[in-house]
Formats: sequence, C-alpha cells, structure tokens
Amino acid sequence: MIFDTYDVVVVGAGHAGCEAAVAAANLGAKVMLATMNMETIAKMSCNPAMGGVAKGQIVREIDALNGYSGIVTDHTMIQFRLLNRSKGPAMWSPRAQSDRMRFAEKWRLMLEAHPNIDFWQEMVTGIVVKDKKAVGIRTSLGLEIPAKTVILTNGTFLNGLIHIGEKQMGGGRAGERAAKGITEQLVELGFEASRMKTGTPPRIDARSINWSALEVQEGDQPAGKFSYTDTPELKEQRPCHIGYTNKKVHECLKEGFSRSPMFNGRIQGLGPRYCPSIEDKIDRFSERDRHQLFVEPEGWNTAEIYLNGFSSSLPEDVQFKAMRLIPGFEQAKMFRPGYAIEYDFFQPTQLKQTLETRLVDGLYFAGQINGTTGYEEAACQGLMAGINAIRKVREEEPFVLKRSDAYIGVLIDDLINKGTNEPYRMFTSRAEYRILLRQDNADIRLTPIAQALGMDVEERMQRVRAKEAAERDISEFMKSYSVRPEAINSYLDSLGSAPLRQPVKLMKVLLRPKVNAEALAEHLPELKAVLDQYPKEFVEYSEIKAKYAGYIKKEEEQVEKMNRLESVRLPENFNYHAIQGLSAEGQEKLSRIRPGSIGQASRISGVSASDISILLVYMGR
Amino acid sequence: MIFDTYDVVVVGAGHAGCEAAVAAANLGAKVMLATMNMETIAKMSCNPAMGGVAKGQIVREIDALNGYSGIVTDHTMIQFRLLNRSKGPAMWSPRAQSDRMRFAEKWRLMLEAHPNIDFWQEMVTGIVVKDKKAVGIRTSLGLEIPAKTVILTNGTFLNGLIHIGEKQMGGGRAGERAAKGITEQLVELGFEASRMKTGTPPRIDARSINWSALEVQEGDQPAGKFSYTDTPELKEQRPCHIGYTNKKVHECLKEGFSRSPMFNGRIQGLGPRYCPSIEDKIDRFSERDRHQLFVEPEGWNTAEIYLNGFSSSLPEDVQFKAMRLIPGFEQAKMFRPGYAIEYDFFQPTQLKQTLETRLVDGLYFAGQINGTTGYEEAACQGLMAGINAIRKVREEEPFVLKRSDAYIGVLIDDLINKGTNEPYRMFTSRAEYRILLRQDNADIRLTPIAQALGMDVEERMQRVRAKEAAERDISEFMKSYSVRPEAINSYLDSLGSAPLRQPVKLMKVLLRPKVNAEALAEHLPELKAVLDQYPKEFVEYSEIKAKYAGYIKKEEEQVEKMNRLESVRLPENFNYHAIQGLSAEGQEKLSRIRPGSIGQASRISGVSASDISILLVYMGR
Repeated sequence: MIFDTYDVVVVGAGHAGCEAAVAAANLGAKVMLATMNMETIAKMSCNPAMGGVAKGQIVREIDALNGYSGIVTDHTMIQFRLLNRSKGPAMWSPRAQSDRMRFAEKWRLMLEAHPNIDFWQEMVTGIVVKDKKAVGIRTSLGLEIPAKTVILTNGTFLNGLIHIGEKQMGGGRAGERAAKGITEQLVELGFEASRMKTGTPPRIDARSINWSALEVQEGDQPAGKFSYTDTPELKEQRPCHIGYTNKKVHECLKEGFSRSPMFNGRIQGLGPRYCPSIEDKIDRFSERDRHQLFVEPEGWNTAEIYLNGFSSSLPEDVQFKAMRLIPGFEQAKMFRPGYAIEYDFFQPTQLKQTLETRLVDGLYFAGQINGTTGYEEAACQGLMAGINAIRKVREEEPFVLKRSDAYIGVLIDDLINKGTNEPYRMFTSRAEYRILLRQDNADIRLTPIAQALGMDVEERMQRVRAKEAAERDISEFMKSYSVRPEAINSYLDSLGSAPLRQPVKLMKVLLRPKVNAEALAEHLPELKAVLDQYPKEFVEYSEIKAKYAGYIKKEEEQVEKMNRLESVRLPENFNYHAIQGLSAEGQEKLSRIRPGSIGQASRISGVSASDISILLVYMGR
Repeated sequence: MIFDTYDVVVVGAGHAGCEAAVAAANLGAKVMLATMNMETIAKMSCNPAMGGVAKGQIVREIDALNGYSGIVTDHTMIQFRLLNRSKGPAMWSPRAQSDRMRFAEKWRLMLEAHPNIDFWQEMVTGIVVKDKKAVGIRTSLGLEIPAKTVILTNGTFLNGLIHIGEKQMGGGRAGERAAKGITEQLVELGFEASRMKTGTPPRIDARSINWSALEVQEGDQPAGKFSYTDTPELKEQRPCHIGYTNKKVHECLKEGFSRSPMFNGRIQGLGPRYCPSIEDKIDRFSERDRHQLFVEPEGWNTAEIYLNGFSSSLPEDVQFKAMRLIPGFEQAKMFRPGYAIEYDFFQPTQLKQTLETRLVDGLYFAGQINGTTGYEEAACQGLMAGINAIRKVREEEPFVLKRSDAYIGVLIDDLINKGTNEPYRMFTSRAEYRILLRQDNADIRLTPIAQALGMDVEERMQRVRAKEAAERDISEFMKSYSVRPEAINSYLDSLGSAPLRQPVKLMKVLLRPKVNAEALAEHLPELKAVLDQYPKEFVEYSEIKAKYAGYIKKEEEQVEKMNRLESVRLPENFNYHAIQGLSAEGQEKLSRIRPGSIGQASRISGVSASDISILLVYMGR
C-alpha cells in the first residue's frame, strides 16, 4: 500500500548500489534504493581513493556509460595522479584521493537530484520470490516493496563478522550492524554461499605523526580528472606521504601471529591476494626488509589518516606497538585499530552475463556479493546490473560488454565463467586487449553504446565527435606535412634519435620512440597551430592512436577472430551431455555455466580446445 | 599500553559529549572522546534545528562560556529566526535550521582541530571503577582507557529499543546499534535506572510534496546568529513551510491506536510532554480540529524533509495513510517512518551540582542519560560536566551556575533537586529570573566567568567590554540629552503616545511603551550619531537594559535575597536526622539530595518552609 511497484529495487547504497540505481534511472526506470542508513550512502568503507591501476580505467568506463562515480570523484577529490605515466598508454591509470565525507555527501545529493530514484531506509531481510521470480523485497518491519526486478548489492554486510586478534563481533563495517536473513533465504533457493574476508588498516591521528620522517607524494600538476564531462578542475591539492616498515616492525608483528585470526584458522574466508594485510606480506615475502606504506589523508580538513598498506587483524595492542616502530609514527595515536571482516558471497558462476541469477528470474547481484573487491569493480557491476534490469523489464535484449569493449566486460566474463574463491580484483594483465581498453578512449568506446541504449548523452556525444574529428585532423596533418631536417634535428639529437637526412612526413617521426607531439610542436609552428586548436586530452588521444597504431591494429585483428567465436551462439537450454566426444569435465562445466557463445565457452576453465572444436563442428562450422 | 591516562574521558560524541570534550580541553585538560562511530559525531538525531524558546538562550550561554554549539550552528545553518520578537525581550529566542550533514561535519572538524582532544572509535561497555572511583573505561575489545575522570553522555543508546507500531528492534538511533553493558554495571553500583522514551517523525521526500498547498515561513532578514564571536553572516536562506493536519488525518491515525505501543502499554518510559507525538496530541487535545506541522528542510540541497509535529510510533502503514491525507502531502513519499525510542536514564537526584555522581567519585553524567530532552539541554550539561571534571582533577572548587546566572543553572538545579520522570525540557517559565537571563546578555553574564575559570577568552572579553562601554555611553547620552517637543511629537503622535509639552530627557521618552531607540534616532541626528558608532546588537542590548531597568532591578533584588540563602552552606555530611523539628519527609529528602546550601534546600520538593526556618536557625541565623 505504501509503495507502488518499482521497475528496479536496489538493495544497498554502496558503490554498486548507487551506480545500479543511477543506471536504471538514467534509462527511465522507476527505481527504489533501499539502504539501512541514508546517512551512510556511498560511504567509502576502506581507503579514501578512487581509481588506480586498471581500476581507474573502469571509473572512466563507468563515466563514459553515464555513471556517476567519475563525476562524484572529480567534485570531491583532494589529489589526482595518473599512475604508470612512464609505461605505455595501456598502463596509464588515473587515481584520486577523495575527501571521504564529501564523497558520500555528493553521491547522496546527486542521487536525490534524480527524479526517478526513490529511497527507503531500513534493513532488507529478504527477497519476495514467486514462481522462481523476484517480485519484491521484504524489510525488517515486515514491509514488502513490490518490484519487477531486484538488485542485491550487500557488500560486506551479509552476516558480516569483524575480527581483531582473538575478538570477533558482528558488523557490516566498524560501528555498523551486519545484515541478516538474505543469505539464509538465498541458500534455501539453491545459491552457493561461501565466506570471504577483507581488511582495513588502523586510522591514525594526523596530529601525532612526525611528518618530517616521511616522503612527500604530491599530486600531478596540473591535476587530471575522471569524468569526460565538464567537471571542475582541481586547483589546490593535498599531498600524500610515504613511509616504510622495517625489521623491528616485522618482528613486533610476528610476535602477535599466534593471536591472529588469519593464522590460527579462525578466519575461513580467503582475503584479497593483491591487497594483503601487513601480516600476510610479512609471512609471504619474508625476505623483504621493509614494506611501503601510503599515508593518506581522509579529506581536506580532517585529522584522520588512512595508513594504506598496514591493513591488519592482529590484536590491537600488537598493531599499536608495531605502528609505533614505524619511522614517523613513534608518537602516533590511533583513532581505531585495523580489522578483518568476513562476509558471505555467492559464486558468480551462478550468474548470467547480465548479472541476473540463473536461479531466480529478475534477481541481480552486483559488487562484493559476487566475490569481487574494490569500489570500482563494485560500481561497474552495479551499472551493468542496473542497465540489464530495466532492459529485462522492457523485454529488451541483454546488454553485454565484450572483453574487447571494456574492462567491465573482462570483469564480468571472468566472474561468471571462472568464478572466484578469493576477492577478485581487476588488473591490466587480466585484459587480453589492453591496448584497446585505455583510459583515454573509454568515451570513444562506450559513450556511443550508452546512446544506443537510450541514455540521454547527447552532450557527451558531441565531445566524442569533436575528439574523433580532432584525431582525424591531427592525423591528417601528421601524414601530409613534410618536416625538414633542420627544423627538428636538434630535437632528435637531444633524444639520441638519428637525424633526418631529407624531409619526411611528420607521422614517420612521431612513430619514433621517445618522440612526442608536444615537443615536436615546439619546433614546428605549423604543428603547434594545429594542436593548439584542441584540448590537451584530444591531442593526447590522437597521439596515442597514431603512435600505437600497429599494436592497436594487431589487437583489433585478434578481436575480430575471437568475435567470430563469440558470434556462434549457444542456446540457453543446450544439452551438452547429448554431444558425443565432449570431455566429461567439459560437459559438466558447460552445463553449469551455460555460456552464451562458443567464445565464452572457450574461456571456461575445464573446457578444452578439443571441446571447442567439437562444439564448432556441432554448431555447423 | 596504548593509552596514556587522560584527565577526562568522554563517552559519546553527541551534543553533550562534544561540548564536554571541548570544555575540558579549553581548560587544558587531556581529553579522550570515545564514540561508537567517528562518522556520526554530532549527528542530529531528531530535528535539524538548534535553539528555540529558552533553548536558544542556552545556546547563547554555551557560546558565552566558550562552547562550540553556537559557532557550529552559525557556520552550518540554512535559516535563522528570532522567535517571540513581539513579546518582551526575556522571551526573545534565537532558532536556526541546520544543514544536518554540514553540522556534523563542522563539529567533527572543530573537535579534530583542538590539540587537547584525542579520539577512540569503539563501543564502550563499562566504566573501570576502583574504590568507588572512576579510573577509566572499558571497550568492547576489552581495552581499558585510563582516566582521572569519566563523563557519560550516552543519549538514547543505553539499551535503546525502537518501536514502530507492534514491531520493536534494538538500536540507539534508526540504523544504528544500541549500547549494552553500561546500565547493568551502573545498576550494580547502586544507580536508579528507569526508562524514558522519545520519538521522531517520518522523513519525507521533498520532491513528492505539493509545496503550493503549504504556507511559506521565511527566515529573518537580515539573519541573526548565535555566537558572540566573529562567525559569518548568513546571506541566503532556505524557507520552511507550514502545513496542518485535519479531522480526516486524525480519524485515520485513531484507527491505528490499538496497534500503538504508546497506548497498548508496550512502551513503559514516559515521553516528552511538550514535544508529544501526533497520536498523543490527538488523544490529549481531542477538541482540536487541526495541528500545525513544520515542514523543515534537512539541508541546503538534500531532498530529505523533517515533518516536525508529526512524530509517531504508530504502525508505518497508518503513518503513511494519515500523512497522505495532509493537504500538500497527497502524493508524498517517505524515506522512512517515524518511530519511538525507549532508552535508559538515571535519576539526576543522584548527582551533585557539578553533575558528578554521588555514588562514584570522578564519574559525571550529562545529557539524556540524566532524563533531559533536547540538543541544547544536552550540550550545556556536557559543558558543565567537562569544566567540573577537569576542575576536580586539579582539586579546584566545583563550578556551579546559580539560577540567577543562567538557564544552565536553572536546568541543573531543577534536575538534581527535583529529579524527573519525563524528559525534561527547558522553558522560559522554569526560570524565575528570566528578565535577567536574556539571549542578548549571555556574554555579559557568563564570558567573565569563563575567563575567571581560566579559559582563553580575551577576544570575547574585549567585545564584552566594548558592549558594556557602548551601553554606558548610550545610557549617558539618553540621560543627559534633552529632546525638544517639536523634534519628536510627530513620532509620538504616530504611536498614539502623548505629545511632549516641554523639553525632557531622552531616557524618559525611551521608557514609554512602543518607543524604540532606532525610531527615535531617525528624528534625532545627535542620537543617530551616537548609535551609529556601535553594532546593532550593542544598541539593542543598551536599549533593553534601559527600557526594562525597573524589572531588572526588581529581579536583582530578589536574587540578592535568595543569594543570602544560597550563601548559607550546608555541609555534605550533615546529619539531618539529628535536627529536631524537621519534618520526616524533609529529613529524608535532604539526606538523599544533600543540598549544598539552604537556598538549594528550599527548592527540593518535600522540604517545607518551616524546615527551612529550622535549618536557618540551626545554621546560626
């Protein structure tokens, strides 16, 4: 009676839930966002930062698809850096330090400003399922909110259990309650639940740190940003600092190992391999005398410091004693100790490519509930689930990003085909087409797709078209303009590059290692005149496209080949046991995962090359 | 090992806890502020507003004593009004609407900026008591934080139980956990625990309200402010709106009464009489056809609306149905329903005038734990407990404000002498000297006291001295300047005031009803020249002091009389049972409350006038 039927009900308002709500709402869905606490919407539970290697690319992809993560970050960041600038452009990764309070506030205000999103503050205790179809959610008050589709984004809250040394306490986050009921219901419905763990470091009082003992890490000058839209430029920035553990710190921590829930078996869930606790690092890399620590401010003005790299679930007294042995932290005070948190997740192999569950029609999972770790990984799943949920309501085709379209495609493809036993984090190495999936071209790759989906992205598209036009113009000039040796030989000499002996096309020079367009322009007024017409990012994009054209072409060819496999569709109800010659393991995995295409089938662990050949023959190739 | 011994450990970071921490820290104490969640520091649990009748005076008193509530409010308010402007100046009461998120953020940042305040985020589960003395606190991790004094400010968190209709759930606030352990320990130590309840209305989605059906309530132009310091002026403001219930709304609500925890006995604690739930109002004032509702925005930009006046613990479906019958709310959506919350408090008659408990040395209580309601009431108790705690550590005299010094004095005197069974709220009517306890003179009354306490308030004192000098100057001018009839008879005529027939001293004219200094100045350039030298508040203060001089003098004489009683001290260990002639009830109450003076004794309910005479004789008068 209180509620109309919503197209999409999103449970949880973290990164996944917020993007899910926005994505569906941007496509015109009537959305309900249900959260335990409206004052913790988009609260960063872990480090106060967005982006980083591969993750920054994801934020850019979310932005290109009209999500809000990039915009919110741009408005609330206190520092920006483009990581891996010294490597190839496939590795360039934007990363921002955020003001934790402002980040959450901005997200909430942007959600509230969306006319299609309603809110309900209460714990959700179950899904209303009828005939294997999700038709609503149930709250702790016993209310039902009717829905055509439901997206679960419960993060670390499902039966969340916090560990500090030998002590355990229920909680979804420090100081917040765990969520009960949903796991039990899902297990009854046939879902495979397991435990995972993640952790967070102690929070330190900035006023008690001896800053002179630490290295300063400044932001880029000028600062970049995440969003392709007209977000404000960051003028002033706050620095981070870098510190190091040492042997004494390690010895001190080791003394607590016998009381660690990680080592005495009390924590059963696996933790994130690439974001390990400090005790894990000491244990696994015992040959290393020190580990780097990033001393990150939590905002513009707060005294709270996030000691990135010192995540721990050792007893608080051990954490404290060890912290005080870190140079610069001799007198440091904690606001609270680090802790590990165990929570329920569900094997993502039970999901379709749309993030809809196979077991319950209209029920979607996004974020840590699928075994991932990271704000960005969660956010992009929310976005994809949100889009697919409203498309399902409208009986439109599933929306799937291919591995060659986006990191988002890689992430979901990995999850649903391989499943995961430890928190899944994105890396550039997971993407086979990473020269295609760059941070500088996410808009070119994805904004046209957002438009095709029906999102109102005309302003974004104008910029995409302008960027493409700039690229054509710059490339045209490079290919047609002949540069005389005397104009640039001094420059080439300074790079240790062979001098020109006769005029050559500028493009040829650009392709040489170390040569870059901006430097060339300083010697070539005609080039400068061309480049000066365009924003810096347009020039950068054009240059990357030119310099890496060979690699790009090669990857595009690989994609082409793979796409042929992707285009061979496998029916949902295909009976793999009826096909002779398939390996037993292949039959089992294919029956369980139910790939949509032979391409997808080829990436399932346990499905062999000969299985694929047999399938191809069977499907009439 | 983690913690040094603190002078003062404050448990809880609401209004009481924050002011307690600041007050002690401002006197140089080493303070630890322990909170369940650093991200909910100074969170406004109920309406997004500070001040109001009598409460606004308290905020000004807190400010005059160097507390932060006024400063934080000034920085984060979205609207300001001086209530009761049409009544006498004793009734003038400042009130501000706050931006809920900004308010909490500003408080936290100001606390963090104080070098004497440390933080610990964890649930506190007990007090460490040795030889009937508080020597620290114990946390859920089992940590001990050693302390010389402890201040408990637990608000509604002690065994907090939320009621909505027939449903109950543990919680200290919507979406937050209750605190366990402390009540049980205190009861064991001999404290008298009882239950109280309070409530909060549903939060509404601003986007779903038909604003044209509501009356607009704008802020004052220009806006005033709370702090006597140099806080920024509020330029733009957000309006509130006013709506009304009607018979249909009442009928609808009544249908839910059988399911109300208020009426079926499930809630045992008494609620705030003067801040009743809507069902209470309908029940107690059944003759009224409508009740006023204040539709308050929760901040500058948020869509969340606080429906002030519609507090309810009726079932959510009843709340919803009734809300939709309010004109303007026909299509309104809720973010969450209203609820009642029951929590533990302790009879404040077990406290000394310093807010130290009689049972445990060095243990102080402040805020709702003492049975009060309201942010302002809580904040000022925190301030007083904070000051007294550090004074105790230093073996200095107790700091007590008299009933003639401040509303704060009235509040504490009432609490410790009379106790309370229902949430105690301040009113102007509780103060017998309210013409002395005005919002315009809190700085004159109290800032010199803050300085005498040892606070660094030299800047505030400069302003106090300037204000006093201005008052003398203006008064001097009024008394010496002779005004000619022709200069102001037209003005007097416009007021319906008798014309002058010969020159008289200006002061004589000012004392006439309706005459005010600003208007006089428009006719008297010499007066204007005097007034223009000073800020508007200085002129207002001077005018009030002049116009109400008669009343002020009378009250001062009463205070004088009473102070004679106050100055007759009664020893702490006085044996009342040994005094012949005292009534049995008098002996019992006096033995229990142990008043510090005969004045205080005279205000204890059950102590008769003849008891007082006997005590006076006994004490040698």
